[in-house]
Amino acid sequence: MIPNFKKAQTASRKSLSLTKRNQVLKNLMKNLKKSSKEIVKANAKDLAKMSPTNSLYDRLLLTPERIDAICADIRTVISLPDPTGKTIEKRALKNGLKMERRSVPLGVVGVIYEARPNVTVDVFSLCFKSGNAAVLKGGSDAENSNKAIVKVIKKSLSEAGVSKDYLYLMPSDRKYVEVLLKSEKYIDLIIPRGSQNLIRFVKENSLVPIIETGAGIVHTYVDNQFDLKTAPEVIFNAKTHRPSVCNALDCLVIHEKSLPKLPKLTQKLTEKNVTIYADPKAYAKLTNKYPKNLLKKATKSHFGKEFLSLKMAIKTVRNLDEAVEHINTYSSRHSEAILSNSLKNQERFINEVDASTVYTNASTRFTDGSVFGLGAEIGISTQKLHARGPFALDALTTYKWILRGKGHSRG
Amino acid sequence: MIPNFKKAQTASRKSLSLTKRNQVLKNLMKNLKKSSKEIVKANAKDLAKMSPTNSLYDRLLLTPERIDAICADIRTVISLPDPTGKTIEKRALKNGLKMERRSVPLGVVGVIYEARPNVTVDVFSLCFKSGNAAVLKGGSDAENSNKAIVKVIKKSLSEAGVSKDYLYLMPSDRKYVEVLLKSEKYIDLIIPRGSQNLIRFVKENSLVPIIETGAGIVHTYVDNQFDLKTAPEVIFNAKTHRPSVCNALDCLVIHEKSLPKLPKLTQKLTEKNVTIYADPKAYAKLTNKYPKNLLKKATKSHFGKEFLSLKMAIKTVRNLDEAVEHINTYSSRHSEAILSNSLKNQERFINEVDASTVYTNASTRFTDGSVFGLGAEIGISTQKLHARGPFALDALTTYKWILRGKGHSRG
Repeated sequence: MIPNFKKAQTASRKSLSLTKRNQVLKNLMKNLKKSSKEIVKANAKDLAKMSPTNSLYDRLLLTPERIDAICADIRTVISLPDPTGKTIEKRALKNGLKMERRSVPLGVVGVIYEARPNVTVDVFSLCFKSGNAAVLKGGSDAENSNKAIVKVIKKSLSEAGVSKDYLYLMPSDRKYVEVLLKSEKYIDLIIPRGSQNLIRFVKENSLVPIIETGAGIVHTYVDNQFDLKTAPEVIFNAKTHRPSVCNALDCLVIHEKSLPKLPKLTQKLTEKNVTIYADPKAYAKLTNKYPKNLLKKATKSHFGKEFLSLKMAIKTVRNLDEAVEHINTYSSRHSEAILSNSLKNQERFINEVDASTVYTNASTRFTDGSVFGLGAEIGISTQKLHARGPFALDALTTYKWILRGKGHSRG
Repeated sequence: MIPNFKKAQTASRKSLSLTKRNQVLKNLMKNLKKSSKEIVKANAKDLAKMSPTNSLYDRLLLTPERIDAICADIRTVISLPDPTGKTIEKRALKNGLKMERRSVPLGVVGVIYEARPNVTVDVFSLCFKSGNAAVLKGGSDAENSNKAIVKVIKKSLSEAGVSKDYLYLMPSDRKYVEVLLKSEKYIDLIIPRGSQNLIRFVKENSLVPIIETGAGIVHTYVDNQFDLKTAPEVIFNAKTHRPSVCNALDCLVIHEKSLPKLPKLTQKLTEKNVTIYADPKAYAKLTNKYPKNLLKKATKSHFGKEFLSLKMAIKTVRNLDEAVEHINTYSSRHSEAILSNSLKNQERFINEVDASTVYTNASTRFTDGSVFGLGAEIGISTQKLHARGPFALDALTTYKWILRGKGHSRG
């Protein structure tokens, strides 16, 4: 495995023109369409090993339509500007040395993921567009699909006269993950995409720097003064628009003065049969107002919980300080919102809540690379170093200090 | 210990105006001068426990003059612009949401260091200037000195009406390092400053993201065509100007066509009695030209070695490709130089050598935050994520996405 990491590193150190990189991606679009049948056939082998009732089944499935969608994503990546070779700053030092700070590829990016074979194409195209080699560790469920896709990618590289070493698909056995995590000599960044267990394992064992993408334990705080016309819809949207994703609402925090409006705020949630876990004050207020079968008493375990389903907790607070304190204690620093008419309270919330993305009077569902205009999203970082919140191509670059002299020595 | 980490986190979440932050730093300058005697006295207790022949003795030593120098550094930090609260980008999304990306403090920064008590002030002032709380783990050798300094810092915070929790000095016993490394809930960044062993331990055990500062295994490549007037001085400067630091030259790589000029290139090194470990071709060329007692045959162990002393290896290569290959194999990605008249070769070297800082026709000694105009240096990062090469206040910040709506929901 290590010789393949080394080959990827060697490949990544030859810089390719943007035209060349885009040519490979164009080849890939063409070849994926051409090989659509073979890929679907390989995918069928993977599907045959999985029960159709498994929640991963749909994620694993490839169809000609889905392959077309993958190609459309490649087209987007082709259209994005080159994140490398940008002069970030340029000046002459007092001693006459000419200094430039320039964006460059990271080198070799390792991505560990699970069932979805489309990630293979996504990750390769983003890494390659930004001048990096990619080492991929896909899940064993998608082994045949991934192999078929990688064959097409390698062909697309070759056709453009580019080294096939820009991509290495690791064996799918989970035991190899550790080899990757310890190869800091060859791998510059690892992005784990998958379950909390996988991310935890990577975090605990990696010598390679990582970008952590992970849980969204998301709050929306309803202040003592807020717009009752829009708030119910914002809450409904944050909770129900796509409950299985990381930016979905998990806990409504409410100022006690706004409690009388809680029935109105939650009414629309009944349309989707949202189960509410309410603290005592909220429970009292919702009794006989919210469907009995959907209203439960909150226990400690309901706070700081990512539901990923049509469930939600409610916490009552006495003031903004308590709201901020509750959120900073339980959030995963992903997306947090305040619904308030007070500009002062909005600013305090923005400043004091520690999260990648902070909203005033809006649904948390907007946290997304494409909504933010990043063109393509690699993930949503819940760490603070290098990339925070939705991140895209720029996060796959670093920079280099370049100093040009005329025989300069330090005095 | 954890309760103190938590207090530091709570403190860091209250944003302080720049005026307030600078006020604390001004207080600190004043109070350090006032308490100069007490600090020197506490320092004497530490010194009494160490042999004056110990190489750490001088690093541990504090004098009134050194305290003045520390105060001068604080003055520099006060003069630097605020790295937080900057709008990095600002635009309206298509849906009307107003989006801003703003620089904010990281939160709590942990720094692990060894004997030098001045680091206590340096790190506090840089962290505090950038709005962060600091958790410091100093070495046990400097325990009394650090306690005396921390007392003065806490006083300076109090006098400005600011929470003393912005600084927490951990017990100096090394066993507590691990507690810090596992406290990812409270600590946002750890910077290890010290021996390779310490850095390795931190890297292997930290759940908190780190910025690795470390070894400089530094090369200078002499191409087949170069300026013989300036090259000997550049090499002399890179090797001897301050041999104990990370940007000092370790290995001269030379094109075989330039070998006849090797005696001239190395002649000046005899002034400082530099020991050379030469590969066979270079050895042959230097025999009878370089002092016999200073000329040794290189073994494998001399390549990829950080000498930190007046020693240097020489490697002969057949061409630029071999030079780049040698450097990418053995360097620590810190600082690398090419001496060449060929613009084409300079550009290839810049692009293909994987290092934080790449020089053409200049000494590698310039890799330094203050030379680069960063105002103050926290360290020189040898990793590619977040900060690369010399880094300063900006590296102690992250950013936050702020989205302001008017009741926006995602469709």
